[in-house]
Amino acid sequence: MLGVCYYPEHWPEDWWAQDARRMREAGISYVRIGEFAWSRYEPRRGEFDWGWLDRAIDVLGAAGLKVVLGTPTCTPPKWVVDDNPDMIPYDEQGRPRGFGSRRHYTFSSENYWRESRRIVEILCQRYGAHPHVVGWQTDNEYGCHDTILSWGLTDLKAFRRWLRTRYQSPNELNAAWGNAFWSMDVQDFEQVSLPNLAVTETNPAAKLDFWRFHSEQVATYNRMQCEIIRAHSPGRWITHNMMGFFNDFDHWAVGDDIDFASWDSYPVGFTERFPFSEDDHVRWAETGHPDIAPFFNDLYRCIGRGRYWVMELQPGPVNWAAWNPVPKPGMIRIFTWEALAHGADVVSYFRWRQAVSGQEQMHAGLNLPGLHEWSQGGREALQVGQELQKLGPLPPSARAPVAIVYDYEASWITRIQPQGKDFDFPELMFRWYETVRRLGLDVDFVRPGADLRGYKLVLVPTMPHVSDAAERAFSQADGLVLYGPRTGSKTRHHAIPPNLPPGPLARLLKARVLEVSSMRPGLSCAVDGEVEGAAIRWRESLDVNDAHVLARFSDGKSALVAAGRHHYLACWPDADLLASVIKLMTTKAGLPTVELPEGIRIRRRSNLLFVFNYGDHPWQLPFSGSIVVGSPTIGPQDFTVVKQG
Amino acid sequence: MLGVCYYPEHWPEDWWAQDARRMREAGISYVRIGEFAWSRYEPRRGEFDWGWLDRAIDVLGAAGLKVVLGTPTCTPPKWVVDDNPDMIPYDEQGRPRGFGSRRHYTFSSENYWRESRRIVEILCQRYGAHPHVVGWQTDNEYGCHDTILSWGLTDLKAFRRWLRTRYQSPNELNAAWGNAFWSMDVQDFEQVSLPNLAVTETNPAAKLDFWRFHSEQVATYNRMQCEIIRAHSPGRWITHNMMGFFNDFDHWAVGDDIDFASWDSYPVGFTERFPFSEDDHVRWAETGHPDIAPFFNDLYRCIGRGRYWVMELQPGPVNWAAWNPVPKPGMIRIFTWEALAHGADVVSYFRWRQAVSGQEQMHAGLNLPGLHEWSQGGREALQVGQELQKLGPLPPSARAPVAIVYDYEASWITRIQPQGKDFDFPELMFRWYETVRRLGLDVDFVRPGADLRGYKLVLVPTMPHVSDAAERAFSQADGLVLYGPRTGSKTRHHAIPPNLPPGPLARLLKARVLEVSSMRPGLSCAVDGEVEGAAIRWRESLDVNDAHVLARFSDGKSALVAAGRHHYLACWPDADLLASVIKLMTTKAGLPTVELPEGIRIRRRSNLLFVFNYGDHPWQLPFSGSIVVGSPTIGPQDFTVVKQG
Amino acid sequence: MLGVCYYPEHWPEDWWAQDARRMREAGISYVRIGEFAWSRYEPRRGEFDWGWLDRAIDVLGAAGLKVVLGTPTCTPPKWVVDDNPDMIPYDEQGRPRGFGSRRHYTFSSENYWRESRRIVEILCQRYGAHPHVVGWQTDNEYGCHDTILSWGLTDLKAFRRWLRTRYQSPNELNAAWGNAFWSMDVQDFEQVSLPNLAVTETNPAAKLDFWRFHSEQVATYNRMQCEIIRAHSPGRWITHNMMGFFNDFDHWAVGDDIDFASWDSYPVGFTERFPFSEDDHVRWAETGHPDIAPFFNDLYRCIGRGRYWVMELQPGPVNWAAWNPVPKPGMIRIFTWEALAHGADVVSYFRWRQAVSGQEQMHAGLNLPGLHEWSQGGREALQVGQELQKLGPLPPSARAPVAIVYDYEASWITRIQPQGKDFDFPELMFRWYETVRRLGLDVDFVRPGADLRGYKLVLVPTMPHVSDAAERAFSQADGLVLYGPRTGSKTRHHAIPPNLPPGPLARLLKARVLEVSSMRPGLSCAVDGEVEGAAIRWRESLDVNDAHVLARFSDGKSALVAAGRHHYLACWPDADLLASVIKLMTTKAGLPTVELPEGIRIRRRSNLLFVFNYGDHPWQLPFSGSIVVGSPTIGPQDFTVVKQG
Repeated sequence: MLGVCYYPEHWPEDWWAQDARRMREAGISYVRIGEFAWSRYEPRRGEFDWGWLDRAIDVLGAAGLKVVLGTPTCTPPKWVVDDNPDMIPYDEQGRPRGFGSRRHYTFSSENYWRESRRIVEILCQRYGAHPHVVGWQTDNEYGCHDTILSWGLTDLKAFRRWLRTRYQSPNELNAAWGNAFWSMDVQDFEQVSLPNLAVTETNPAAKLDFWRFHSEQVATYNRMQCEIIRAHSPGRWITHNMMGFFNDFDHWAVGDDIDFASWDSYPVGFTERFPFSEDDHVRWAETGHPDIAPFFNDLYRCIGRGRYWVMELQPGPVNWAAWNPVPKPGMIRIFTWEALAHGADVVSYFRWRQAVSGQEQMHAGLNLPGLHEWSQGGREALQVGQELQKLGPLPPSARAPVAIVYDYEASWITRIQPQGKDFDFPELMFRWYETVRRLGLDVDFVRPGADLRGYKLVLVPTMPHVSDAAERAFSQADGLVLYGPRTGSKTRHHAIPPNLPPGPLARLLKARVLEVSSMRPGLSCAVDGEVEGAAIRWRESLDVNDAHVLARFSDGKSALVAAGRHHYLACWPDADLLASVIKLMTTKAGLPTVELPEGIRIRRRSNLLFVFNYGDHPWQLPFSGSIVVGSPTIGPQDFTVVKQG
Repeated sequence: MLGVCYYPEHWPEDWWAQDARRMREAGISYVRIGEFAWSRYEPRRGEFDWGWLDRAIDVLGAAGLKVVLGTPTCTPPKWVVDDNPDMIPYDEQGRPRGFGSRRHYTFSSENYWRESRRIVEILCQRYGAHPHVVGWQTDNEYGCHDTILSWGLTDLKAFRRWLRTRYQSPNELNAAWGNAFWSMDVQDFEQVSLPNLAVTETNPAAKLDFWRFHSEQVATYNRMQCEIIRAHSPGRWITHNMMGFFNDFDHWAVGDDIDFASWDSYPVGFTERFPFSEDDHVRWAETGHPDIAPFFNDLYRCIGRGRYWVMELQPGPVNWAAWNPVPKPGMIRIFTWEALAHGADVVSYFRWRQAVSGQEQMHAGLNLPGLHEWSQGGREALQVGQELQKLGPLPPSARAPVAIVYDYEASWITRIQPQGKDFDFPELMFRWYETVRRLGLDVDFVRPGADLRGYKLVLVPTMPHVSDAAERAFSQADGLVLYGPRTGSKTRHHAIPPNLPPGPLARLLKARVLEVSSMRPGLSCAVDGEVEGAAIRWRESLDVNDAHVLARFSDGKSALVAAGRHHYLACWPDADLLASVIKLMTTKAGLPTVELPEGIRIRRRSNLLFVFNYGDHPWQLPFSGSIVVGSPTIGPQDFTVVKQG
Repeated sequence: MLGVCYYPEHWPEDWWAQDARRMREAGISYVRIGEFAWSRYEPRRGEFDWGWLDRAIDVLGAAGLKVVLGTPTCTPPKWVVDDNPDMIPYDEQGRPRGFGSRRHYTFSSENYWRESRRIVEILCQRYGAHPHVVGWQTDNEYGCHDTILSWGLTDLKAFRRWLRTRYQSPNELNAAWGNAFWSMDVQDFEQVSLPNLAVTETNPAAKLDFWRFHSEQVATYNRMQCEIIRAHSPGRWITHNMMGFFNDFDHWAVGDDIDFASWDSYPVGFTERFPFSEDDHVRWAETGHPDIAPFFNDLYRCIGRGRYWVMELQPGPVNWAAWNPVPKPGMIRIFTWEALAHGADVVSYFRWRQAVSGQEQMHAGLNLPGLHEWSQGGREALQVGQELQKLGPLPPSARAPVAIVYDYEASWITRIQPQGKDFDFPELMFRWYETVRRLGLDVDFVRPGADLRGYKLVLVPTMPHVSDAAERAFSQADGLVLYGPRTGSKTRHHAIPPNLPPGPLARLLKARVLEVSSMRPGLSCAVDGEVEGAAIRWRESLDVNDAHVLARFSDGKSALVAAGRHHYLACWPDADLLASVIKLMTTKAGLPTVELPEGIRIRRRSNLLFVFNYGDHPWQLPFSGSIVVGSPTIGPQDFTVVKQG
């Protein structure tokens, strides 16, 4: 189904009914409103103006639209900030990040928690039982603009409280963090400092705890909102719209408290920001890379325990990347169908109409700026609406054959201690995912410690800290497991395990890591054996006990080893090596694969096979089955759906 | 005529007479002094030491030199700063920009206005009627070192006052700025914040007003000084020495209050700083790019309403660019004559003698450091002096056939909201100007809203906000007009016009812009039709009503359209497309052109045609007329003057 | 002999004896301890826990190891910082550099001097006469992490005191600094500001004095510690472990107060950080550049007046460079022998065992992390121990035939005023040194003003300020002297000399510099004559009086001139020109040379000739003599010792 984000407060009241009518004509069922409107319904403390919002909901509901209401805590008005100066976040350089845009609060501020509780309660009391309101979005895009970590006095105080609870005594803390190093011992929790603005790098154990502390705050803050909503709005669901590539908090934990996950999908903007090569950047600038939105569709489906929405989909060029090209004709339709193919319940466009003022005035909408007139993206949404109606309800999305473990702590640890400056977690995850998808396989993401039984192949691109639960899940896996470099290289306290890496996995892998080498661009090391290619960026020296060596580096050391179903790749693989390794694993796992061209991707939803063409050349479909959408030759920026079996 | 900048306070008093005599021998008529000398004539508040300045003016005047006296407000001594801590400017990151160099004041400080009034009045009372003092320079290089915008508490207070006057009520402000977006509404002017140090970008409407506010302050501050000078120094003229590439305030507005414009010309340093390609940087490193000084000669002549000086010309290597090569032999002479060819009344060198200490000790002078001995640049100045004497008075500079509209607001808007990170205003202006000059045409710059009648061709490389006055001037133009991308794309309040871009120009252009695409390096789009080449960086999708399509993009959309005399180019053109478009326009306008080699440029002053060779190869003159300077084959770094008609 | 850095406080007490025994088995004689342990022996003010340290020294001593004890002032515990907030250093941007890593103090803090005196005295009283303690290390790596210059209020107060002593009156200061420029005069020392956070660059004379002030503070701070140690620890020597490439203080001055010099050698990490070309970076990433450690071995031997240690040698990959590759097998052995060949008394590895926690957990040790098991580097150290035993005591290191003057002020001046942004002092020094070494010559570094008699060839790559003493030493040299660009270009107060550069050397060189040109990459100027190649980055225009011109630039100006034994090179030479110039000088000096391949280097210690192969190809030894280590064909990453004469 389709949805749209709408800002009645931006347009004359007498436009609303016409907007609602045209939404329905386009096949739109859901409309999200209100998440940035605090200053419009409470311009001064305690002085409320609900009239316009009442009427907006009425007009939308009357047209047959279901309303998703956003809590407004992402954009507290100036008077809230003036009343609570301690809510202002600080960046790592110690500069305040004040009023003037959005997300100007730190999760550490008890005062802002109080303000949040108050406004969410008031809002829920008013609209919680409104017949047109079917669900809620908490806040908006936690973490956007780098707003999870904050480095102010408010944060220091909250961090000390958190540490006191966790460690009980300063000596416990000293031991856990290894504070003997460089005389960093504290004798009192009040001696703990923020891990920034020091002469050189601060203790990685402190930084990891600082990250965990902030990540936990996000989850508890979100839970606080959820509890208020549930208390006042029975029967309505709750979601939160997350963002791809914002790894600063554990999305799995936030996912626990909401009914399903949502995410905001900007394939072209994300492609511009991803660390692709210059050639790839130019190649995919106007279509988005074919795996960039699918990656997050798969991730948030799994975070949502099988249910998710795309809450915001770009309907044309955005405003926030370094360059903002117009997507090629047809791409908005493709982006929508990709999300549906990956299992989205609803795809909702951001936004109904391009704004004429404010920071996002150059961000496209389904309608031209300030007009009742479809944009190019709007026309493609209309087409999707018709296609959806023709196709009828979509069958459910099945479990995928391949699982990739997605570990937020891995992102933090590799940023805290890259050791080689291009050991980039998002890039590593993305490249492994892409390589599986190039073989025509569907992918699930799984949480560290989750049950892995039933997956033919489990991939762990990297996971430095392997918890007891994660170790247990790995040991109980009934498919093949492939671990990437650095897996098991850290304890919970960011220390090297007493038995060396891979720490708790040594029992499964029958090998240990003696030494690691990070390699600057230009350095590489050939790999040969059952797989072929080269190591770049990172390689490890393995001490192989009972593991079986599948491939070796050119100096004879082991590059890929196996012990039963468990495999370890001791390097960052270049594209050839990665393809070779993944191919070997899928073959060993008995998974049927198809080698897709660089611009073609497929995805199944039960017996429906969706085939997308992001490239510039037509592609002749090699799959059997009956075509229910499109044709056997898929043109550029087009797609075909085949019913199989 | 020639002038020079001199610092008697840097040299022993018994050198002054010899210096003055040698100036006269070199044909120098004017000497600028005093603009950095405050601490030398008022070392402590109210304690004056005028003796040395009295004697310096006497010695210079006695030698036949005319003295230009600078007000000293650019370098307030430490005691002024200590007495007025609120005068310190702050950078956008919130750091103070304290004492220790120059321009350490914000235009927002009422206290510094008071100090400025006081010292200018005292100075004018003493020297305003001095027979040797013929004119005044206010302050020095407003805006140098990025000193227009300041982000301190002093600025916030002044900005709130300015907003209160402009908008009267908070609701007016909220409406103008579109503060409904992201709950940015204010209920009181005291709630307005500085548009910096926020979590992400702040409201572009607020930023534009903040820029206007600062720009207006510069003009009123300068006017304040002018009024004091006029009151105490009857019969003397006033100028200010502006800088090229410092677009942070509206130079046209400052130009209104002075008798003529001046500018400080550093062709080699400016070339180093301009965003040229690496190849072009190497190509022009030692001569300066052939259009870089001419661009500003033309701009400041027009800002000066036909009258201007080069107040400072580099006489050799400077000290402030990343690299500071020695200009090739002959270039100082060329720089001087280019300025004269463009209509300069006086070309004044900076500085008489290279300093031996202080920040600029590596900046060349006409004399070697601390010596009475000509530098290479000094010898070239001597030659110019002789040539000037031989040539006699120069005829006046005529109106040019081509006008380029230079809009400072366009610089601000495209920096506030680049949308594509290489949409660089100075580069766009420069490339259009260069392309016209390569066809041998003289250029005037004109102010937005100025009368355009009489120009055969008017170019508007970009002008996002088209005021009523500007629209009127365009509609009354009697030549052809060519508008570049983004023209008319914003209202006065940095919003998208209700009828879409080009807003008020839609009536003239019979087209509107539906969508814009910014393109990263490597992306381009071919253009074909009456012009040929490619779009890079930026392209727009036009909805063409009654306009005539002259060229199309490869996807069939319109690239260049015309409606009567009005033309719109819907992209950033690459070099080929730009040359093709300008050539088409000049042909349609009936202007005779000549395609000049990359190192040759020409400029007329009535019937005198000046031909300059910046290149490395001799060039055979193709023009008729009698040669009055030089020869028919112009050597590298040489020039020829032809008398025509 | 060999040594090692050990941290008993990081390991269980019952491991110590085993560690000590294995150290001895590896041929290790010295063990450095304690320099980061303050918080472990004084966890709270006045509350001491000496037991563990007593026992650690006893255990180590009992095993036959000689203990070097470090004063702990590099890592003051948190309570020291909380008691003395004024000790916190500030960076040039005004940000505090607080607790959380190390070196969090400014040398300007009188309070921190008091704390330092106190703890050093207490430590010396306890262990000064301990029979196992044979020597002391003061603090740790002065200057590491850019910690010499600090920009806080504490520093400003101390700077004003220093200036008052040095200049006596504000007018003396104004004259010395040239404060007439830009009205920078002060009337009171309290008006002096820090030379940072100004609108544009501050006075270079002020910056140079600020640097001298900080550099002097380091020397006096170190002297303070030495005096306490000498008072309480009779018969023990004192050293300090310096770092290569940290030029912010005058190491010669610190060297005056210690018994011998030490330095910390990280050849692979230093290579990664040096401004090599991309190709060279890849070429030498896993061996280190063959001159990078030798450079500092030679420098610190000379700073130590012939005696020095390598206090820390990397035994494998480090953790602090952008990339941290594993050195090729054999390189740890080579690094050790290079140091011994250059005259080191002791080579001590950092560290015994890789840490499992803290900031340096990815830094290799001789033992694997947390294990009693040799790493690859540990095994190479074992081999060196055996080789050392076999070879017996090494003969002394003789005076080298070539001296290079190493002037710390030159580093400061060229950073304060680069004039061309790639005028990089370390690179210039390194390239000259490398070029001499490629000819098989040994090198001494000498201090400005030191007696130069006895050196056949003296090189002065650059020395802007030539003091009276330096001028005297040059004039008394009895070998050839070659001065590089900018030599003699500044007075003591960073002004241009009254007779132009080379100032006081004009008498010896019979030439003066009229003008300098800095050239961006891509610009160059051919040089021809007795030497050949090209100038890049920098060239000067000489006015040659009685000097003899040996080579000219392509425009005919003089590039290399000689007056008697004194030579001046008026440019930054490219590799060809530099090789050609050095070859000419050695030939004129009558020095026998051998042109070594890029990966081969030699070094003499009396009649022992050490030949090292850093390259990838075997090399056939061309030298006569009997081989005492290795073979006549030296394999990659191997070495040979020849006994000659």
